[in-house]
Amino acid sequence: MIKVGILGSTGRVGSLLIDDLEHDEQARVGAVHVFDKLTKQLPEDTVVTNDMKVLFDSSDVIIDFSAPGATEALLTEVVENGARKPLVIATTGFTKHQQNLLIEASKLVPILYATNMSLGVAVLNKLVALASKTLADFDIEIVEQHHKHKVDSPSGTALTLAEHAADARGLVLDEVRVSGRDGQIGARTKDEIAVMALRGGDIVGRHTVGLYNDGEFLELNHTATARNTFSKGAIKVAKWIIAKEPKLYSINDALGL
Amino acid sequence: MIKVGILGSTGRVGSLLIDDLEHDEQARVGAVHVFDKLTKQLPEDTVVTNDMKVLFDSSDVIIDFSAPGATEALLTEVVENGARKPLVIATTGFTKHQQNLLIEASKLVPILYATNMSLGVAVLNKLVALASKTLADFDIEIVEQHHKHKVDSPSGTALTLAEHAADARGLVLDEVRVSGRDGQIGARTKDEIAVMALRGGDIVGRHTVGLYNDGEFLELNHTATARNTFSKGAIKVAKWIIAKEPKLYSINDALGL
Amino acid sequence: MIKVGILGSTGRVGSLLIDDLEHDEQARVGAVHVFDKLTKQLPEDTVVTNDMKVLFDSSDVIIDFSAPGATEALLTEVVENGARKPLVIATTGFTKHQQNLLIEASKLVPILYATNMSLGVAVLNKLVALASKTLADFDIEIVEQHHKHKVDSPSGTALTLAEHAADARGLVLDEVRVSGRDGQIGARTKDEIAVMALRGGDIVGRHTVGLYNDGEFLELNHTATARNTFSKGAIKVAKWIIAKEPKLYSINDALGL
Amino acid sequence: MIKVGILGSTGRVGSLLIDDLEHDEQARVGAVHVFDKLTKQLPEDTVVTNDMKVLFDSSDVIIDFSAPGATEALLTEVVENGARKPLVIATTGFTKHQQNLLIEASKLVPILYATNMSLGVAVLNKLVALASKTLADFDIEIVEQHHKHKVDSPSGTALTLAEHAADARGLVLDEVRVSGRDGQIGARTKDEIAVMALRGGDIVGRHTVGLYNDGEFLELNHTATARNTFSKGAIKVAKWIIAKEPKLYSINDALGL
Repeated sequence: MIKVGILGSTGRVGSLLIDDLEHDEQARVGAVHVFDKLTKQLPEDTVVTNDMKVLFDSSDVIIDFSAPGATEALLTEVVENGARKPLVIATTGFTKHQQNLLIEASKLVPILYATNMSLGVAVLNKLVALASKTLADFDIEIVEQHHKHKVDSPSGTALTLAEHAADARGLVLDEVRVSGRDGQIGARTKDEIAVMALRGGDIVGRHTVGLYNDGEFLELNHTATARNTFSKGAIKVAKWIIAKEPKLYSINDALGL
Repeated sequence: MIKVGILGSTGRVGSLLIDDLEHDEQARVGAVHVFDKLTKQLPEDTVVTNDMKVLFDSSDVIIDFSAPGATEALLTEVVENGARKPLVIATTGFTKHQQNLLIEASKLVPILYATNMSLGVAVLNKLVALASKTLADFDIEIVEQHHKHKVDSPSGTALTLAEHAADARGLVLDEVRVSGRDGQIGARTKDEIAVMALRGGDIVGRHTVGLYNDGEFLELNHTATARNTFSKGAIKVAKWIIAKEPKLYSINDALGL
Repeated sequence: MIKVGILGSTGRVGSLLIDDLEHDEQARVGAVHVFDKLTKQLPEDTVVTNDMKVLFDSSDVIIDFSAPGATEALLTEVVENGARKPLVIATTGFTKHQQNLLIEASKLVPILYATNMSLGVAVLNKLVALASKTLADFDIEIVEQHHKHKVDSPSGTALTLAEHAADARGLVLDEVRVSGRDGQIGARTKDEIAVMALRGGDIVGRHTVGLYNDGEFLELNHTATARNTFSKGAIKVAKWIIAKEPKLYSINDALGL
Repeated sequence: MIKVGILGSTGRVGSLLIDDLEHDEQARVGAVHVFDKLTKQLPEDTVVTNDMKVLFDSSDVIIDFSAPGATEALLTEVVENGARKPLVIATTGFTKHQQNLLIEASKLVPILYATNMSLGVAVLNKLVALASKTLADFDIEIVEQHHKHKVDSPSGTALTLAEHAADARGLVLDEVRVSGRDGQIGARTKDEIAVMALRGGDIVGRHTVGLYNDGEFLELNHTATARNTFSKGAIKVAKWIIAKEPKLYSINDALGL
């Protein structure tokens, strides 16, 4: 059994990671790093620690859904203190210094870095880029939908999909993105890409990228049906990275895309 | 065979009316009213006229997809000159005087007045009102989609659907309608109704009304697959109104809704 | 706070009922009836009993997601032992005797009986009947989708939707239902209603009823996003039935449909 | 202007080809081959012939939507009579001899051979293969929908999509394909691929390939909105093949896939 160390175990995804690993046949929780106390019940032989060295020593691979400061401490343990375990990192919002630290650490241990651990979304990004490039005269429109509590629009995932669509055509998303239409606004311009945000109920996440032409259209949809899509993706890539050489990997590498 | 008179025969829907009646087993073109010359080929025994009296005399029922001025002349023929034939009217943009004329005429002949002759859209409006009222704590979001050439957003049909949804809850659409979302805009408010407009390709018309709650949602969609949806609906209600008493009817009356 | 008694508390929906009532502001668990021991943790002041009389005495309303035998005991308590509390019953598979008992009991206490407690599905059944009847020459096709573990096809909910569609046209579902198409089978017959079952992943439940005509179509979809749709619906109708007169009610009565 | 020769001009797609070329800015009808008389009106300077040599001499490229016998005559003109023009062939149902003739001819002139000339469907096949391979533990289900007059199920396009999905996983479609589900059939098996056919109204063609996993799913849809999708695709690849070397090309070559 692969022993997984968890950084960010008190967060929402960290908690789901612990639940998912309980039902996994190849991996289990080895150690969890906590700054404070952890209210969640853990398997009996789990190491609970606030010491990075102990986290590394008790794990075969570490999954990190924490925050930039904690990730910095994790990477420092590799770069300065000789820790050598593969890392799966899903933290966002790094400073320049932290980004450099990530690159330094990836020369010493294999690191998979991704801001969205959903395998389906990774594949969709790839499909969208391919379709956008091949069907270059199709009009692109994106719709995303989330629960009523979400405070920002559009979702980061929708913007990443739109970037893949725009990049594939040599367009700059900021110059072509539309987020609403109202009034006598005239006909659609060739290059514009609408990214429309719907909100309601408890929708976990739905993203549809449409490509429209005279006579036909394609609609490529990803739907998350459960909140543990990210924790499951992280566990899958953690199993993959264990046998790899030191390098900075993307989720596409793990998927062979 | 029912003889159908057509006012507005040179317009897009008027032209489709002529095509559809060629394949109808119960009705045929009786007469077409033209101000100018008509380039379209007509069945051999069609009466072509610029005289309202001749139009009435040559028809069992008249379908009007023209403009307010022409419709005014049609109604005047009933109110002042004693013409007595059932009318199906789909013109929009009436003045107050023209509206009154419509009401006066409907005391003398049966008139079905509707701004959207699609049977499916009429039913959808009814379903939306019923669902909105019954599921009063579900969040409502509407998406409409049309071809890239459409110059106004959202579509009139989408706004009518939104009105049915809002009215059923005692809301005023103008106070709750949203047409785009971008940035850190905070959580969805309870009453807001998004009406989002997508554009692309040659889509004839798609409208989806979604009702979202924790644990479940409904999505009610209408899709027009051909541009003759309106002409076909008009022919259907024309057959229905022929046996009716003088009165102002809606498309819901014809559908028994 | 309304005290809810639960029959069938060890089942899947019974367990969700207990969870949902923890977050409810108007109702709480009053008592649970168990035949055996209950492993689930309960609010502190909950009465746990295997005595029907105690269940009735400790509840303002009783929700029953058990099995026919247990429901029979519940109804007998009303009919023979003078218990007088409103009941919400979701059990299926009654014998003739049990059905009669249900009717007898409903003369003494208000009973809401429904085999599907989802409010959205109840509304969809109503919408489908209305659309099927009004748009009588539209072709009807139904698609349902559930997780890969479901062993029966099509779902009971899909068959009920199909029955509403068929009944509205005076058709007998068994004579017109189709569950697959393969080979040179010829053109679609006018009255047939396909009910197609898709399976995969962890889909909780999606049902789409399509009505197709030349030029336009309607697609009416219900999607369950969480497994507690039924428990939430039961709690909602339990609050409604508390103030009602003895009678046998349907979920449509509670929804005002 | 590119002069396009048409073989199969009296068929449905052939007729649409003539219409589409009337609005094209880079290509026009050069010649049409007819066995009998052609009732359709043609541009004034079109060569109408029943002689293959004249068809070749009057065209820069020839598009063939005919039948195996006619295609055989076309290919024979290349192989035996020295005709040298690029060919776009969409005929199906070749004998072994005709297939060999196709290969022989492609050594002498560039030939693009495809049984479905829709660009969107070609891209979808590619996306499906990629997703099926990358997300190898997702369950695959396919739904296709056509108008009520279609006599065979499932559509050839749906079967081709299913083949791409199966091939990508090393599965043989015939061993895993399911075309309906009814009764107590047990849980879904890992490898099965449902291909379900819906029929109704005047739907031109909709195909959805779904990939379902615990926590997430992808749905990849192609919708044809007009019957000239094939003729438009053929014209596009005809413009592409004009400058190519003799070889047998697929539509993927033309799309750079």
